[in-house]
Amino acid sequence: MAQKTTLKEFESVFPKLEEVLLEHARSYNLPAQALEWYKKSLEINAVGGKCNRGMSVPDSASLLLGWPLTEDEYFKAATLGWMTELLQAFFLVSDDIMDSSITRRGKPCWYRHEGVGMIAINDAFMLESAIYTLLKKYFRDHPRYVDLLELFHEVTYQTEIGQLCDLLTAPEDRVDLDNFSMDKYRFIVIYKTAYYSFYLPVALALHLLDLATPDNLKQAESILIPLGEYFQVQDDYLDNFGLPEHIGKIGTDIMDNKCSWLVNQALAIVTPEQRRVLADNYGRKDKDNEAVIKKLYDELKLEQRYKDYEEKVVGEIRDLIAKIDETQGLKKGVFEAFLAKIYKRSK
Amino acid sequence: MAQKTTLKEFESVFPKLEEVLLEHARSYNLPAQALEWYKKSLEINAVGGKCNRGMSVPDSASLLLGWPLTEDEYFKAATLGWMTELLQAFFLVSDDIMDSSITRRGKPCWYRHEGVGMIAINDAFMLESAIYTLLKKYFRDHPRYVDLLELFHEVTYQTEIGQLCDLLTAPEDRVDLDNFSMDKYRFIVIYKTAYYSFYLPVALALHLLDLATPDNLKQAESILIPLGEYFQVQDDYLDNFGLPEHIGKIGTDIMDNKCSWLVNQALAIVTPEQRRVLADNYGRKDKDNEAVIKKLYDELKLEQRYKDYEEKVVGEIRDLIAKIDETQGLKKGVFEAFLAKIYKRSK
Repeated sequence: MAQKTTLKEFESVFPKLEEVLLEHARSYNLPAQALEWYKKSLEINAVGGKCNRGMSVPDSASLLLGWPLTEDEYFKAATLGWMTELLQAFFLVSDDIMDSSITRRGKPCWYRHEGVGMIAINDAFMLESAIYTLLKKYFRDHPRYVDLLELFHEVTYQTEIGQLCDLLTAPEDRVDLDNFSMDKYRFIVIYKTAYYSFYLPVALALHLLDLATPDNLKQAESILIPLGEYFQVQDDYLDNFGLPEHIGKIGTDIMDNKCSWLVNQALAIVTPEQRRVLADNYGRKDKDNEAVIKKLYDELKLEQRYKDYEEKVVGEIRDLIAKIDETQGLKKGVFEAFLAKIYKRSK
Repeated sequence: MAQKTTLKEFESVFPKLEEVLLEHARSYNLPAQALEWYKKSLEINAVGGKCNRGMSVPDSASLLLGWPLTEDEYFKAATLGWMTELLQAFFLVSDDIMDSSITRRGKPCWYRHEGVGMIAINDAFMLESAIYTLLKKYFRDHPRYVDLLELFHEVTYQTEIGQLCDLLTAPEDRVDLDNFSMDKYRFIVIYKTAYYSFYLPVALALHLLDLATPDNLKQAESILIPLGEYFQVQDDYLDNFGLPEHIGKIGTDIMDNKCSWLVNQALAIVTPEQRRVLADNYGRKDKDNEAVIKKLYDELKLEQRYKDYEEKVVGEIRDLIAKIDETQGLKKGVFEAFLAKIYKRSK
């Protein structure tokens, strides 16, 4: 496997991009107070995550080429990677408001910072706009510039319809298990998470190297979307069955009325009586109700059900990877790298 | 002057665009409940305004051509016009949340509709995304497709920096007149309003007809930005001095702590004692405080000051229009039409 970028290497690119974005704002004579604000929003919201999505752009590019990236290639790939992080920052800042979240990455959510409040909505917009400022600055002469623009537009839209469905399916304040279904679950997971987290970085790497033939994009999508779905199912599993010391947080999906893989699996196999237990205790902000659900999940053997699912889906994904047609420059290694990072993770 | 589009004609184009947007959502298998939601958001937020911005795209195109548009030309121009209305809807839905507004176009703001709340943030995003869906559908093969994309990106960004400056300069809950200045006022007005309301529709018409030479765009900008500034100054004037039965609302700028043209003019000419009166009464949610400010505005003769400003700025704009170089296809009539709609308006 080709050499992998480190978080340190990837983060070292950001100050240059930040300077470009601030210089762009200065060119419009943005007053000093607003410029400072924008700088702070960029630094707090775009930086500080694990950057798995961002780093997978240079990683994928290197695997596609078959050798390490030159300094210039690395900069370009990492810049596209930072755009995926900006897109995520745009979503996270606004999702946190919509979900009334309290903390993000162990710190208060941006909208909960002193003096921020609803200004965070406009800050989210500006994080999104930063993507197009950087695209214009660094990729205007790239042969795939239009495809890059359209890719960001489409993935943004896909994430928005996923978020809309999520918000309508699992409102925090109204528990209605009839609203849940595996179909809706899959829709939400695929559009809200899989496209921007898995498909986008690889599609960006393909465009960067001008390898994004329709067939290569289609093949990448056909593997990365199931992979993203598996990743989210795992996330839902870990929320309940993972160890807090591994996942770095205490799961709250049950109390938050989340349309999680676990509750959907439970709904598929409960007896009428267990279903009443679910309805009476799911989505309540109470530790005792949560404990009842956790006990039910154990009775329903959801841990084993997850493990069976994992073995099955990983087998399917491996088959898909094995069948990849590499004649147009796609490489199996790209997908093997993603799968290796995810399979049997505990955090 | 060429024939002007009517609101009825312009609105008759929307159902077709709405169907395209809903069909696009259906192509992703968006669940029925979410599809219904999106349809309602589009209809309530994009439709129902005066559509001055949107209609000025076909109007400008017709004036640039010198003859009425064919049916197909009208549809294309009106589609670009509807994109400016979608952009505005994106801003208004989110501005209303940021400003804690109560009503919009005489009805409750979208976020205050039953069951909407913060979901409105995601709805705003989807209104923005609709622009790019329509651009791709109808303009992907247009020779100026990339310019159209970049124009929307830039104007969106400009509006966002204007909004940021506005939010930081005039927070609803913290009155500090030291924060106001004519420089900041002009920045806010130019970026938050003038670019998307005045420059954007004409730039779109120029691109549509492939007349957007760098020189034509620059000339258009050099007139439309002062025109937009004049329009907003007038708006601020009417908020206090206009007749409620004309402007269709009761002005609230004083109570809302707005960084209005009037308060900035007052700040420039007050005595130290009048300044104390301003500081003690501006931005308070109280009719008595508001009456004190209104009386001060009268003492300071701000009505006459506005009228002097209007004559001066309109003279300057007429001079700019007279000097337009029409050799690359730009037409003075485009700007005369804008000015005629604005000059001495009372609503």
